[in-house]
Amino acid sequence: MLITLDILTQRRSQMIDLTEKIRQAIRQSGIFTGQALVHVPHTTAALTINENADPDVMHDLQEFFTRIAPPGDTYRHREGNSDAHIKSSLLGVTLPLIITGGEPLLGTWQGVFFCEFDGPRQRQVHIQVSGS
Amino acid sequence: MLITLDILTQRRSQMIDLTEKIRQAIRQSGIFTGQALVHVPHTTAALTINENADPDVMHDLQEFFTRIAPPGDTYRHREGNSDAHIKSSLLGVTLPLIITGGEPLLGTWQGVFFCEFDGPRQRQVHIQVSGS
Amino acid sequence: MLITLDILTQRRSQMIDLTEKIRQAIRQSGIFTGQALVHVPHTTAALTINENADPDVMHDLQEFFTRIAPPGDTYRHREGNSDAHIKSSLLGVTLPLIITGGEPLLGTWQGVFFCEFDGPRQRQVHIQVSGS
Repeated sequence: MLITLDILTQRRSQMIDLTEKIRQAIRQSGIFTGQALVHVPHTTAALTINENADPDVMHDLQEFFTRIAPPGDTYRHREGNSDAHIKSSLLGVTLPLIITGGEPLLGTWQGVFFCEFDGPRQRQVHIQVSGS
Repeated sequence: MLITLDILTQRRSQMIDLTEKIRQAIRQSGIFTGQALVHVPHTTAALTINENADPDVMHDLQEFFTRIAPPGDTYRHREGNSDAHIKSSLLGVTLPLIITGGEPLLGTWQGVFFCEFDGPRQRQVHIQVSGS
Repeated sequence: MLITLDILTQRRSQMIDLTEKIRQAIRQSGIFTGQALVHVPHTTAALTINENADPDVMHDLQEFFTRIAPPGDTYRHREGNSDAHIKSSLLGVTLPLIITGGEPLLGTWQGVFFCEFDGPRQRQVHIQVSGS
């Protein structure tokens, strides 16, 4: 089963917690044991798993990225968003999750985040749920 | 089949070769062709595949991380381990492996490593084996 | 079904678009809905998804890596390619793709790249296609 989420981002750099929507997609599929493969079809956005309790963790990750790949740096790509392409590759755009007991297997503090690096934009996230 | 490993780390930053344990889990499952999905349910640890012949490779990776995300840096997250959260996202916590001939498909020099960035701690690694 | 591609790289750092070859492997398998798991069995190469319209994007990614992990830096690993091992771990060597309609699910601007960081070398890429 393939579910597509529509996401409207509001800022150039923004982390959006998708955990609950992924949980819903898995429940909707009726799959009890298997895998969810999450995919972002963009080249200036990404996916990551990290702490969803304290928003400062995601703030610090964004600050880190701004430090190692500053937006205004001297890149060759003319669209002015090379930093966003770099961050997309560093985190990755496909994320496989174990499904057990009809739920994604995640640690207590783990959430799945959509990472916008060149917003605001209209974005999509695909979730393929397979198993039995 | 889902197998959970318990790992006790000894240092703040430590790389532990899991290859043999993943190999054992696959053998135990009886799966000959399929996939092993490895998942670390923590937000200050990670998984990576890299050379397991010369331990200096993993040493250099840790030094690199210390240089680009120093532990004592000025982060907003109050627990003092933002650098560990950043490293976790950079390497990732889920890792899918091809199984063929009842073994994980890995190159001659490839090993699968559990990466501790905020130890010492009691940690877990989940391995889901699927296929036929 | 497992397909292995042979790749001959020409430079130390080089990005090679594999998208069409992955598309062909999926067509060859006859799988309509499922997953392709791509794996690079090397520790100084990697896989990434990013823009394949403007080659400057991949140029900028390579420049970024040269800046944060310079080749001639003071590493402990004696083979002089620690920077390549670091880049391999940052991007990763396994990449799962959703297959739908007999095609890999990719965004308009997304391509799958083999990333050479210690060439020129003879390399391999494994593609496992599963589903129905």
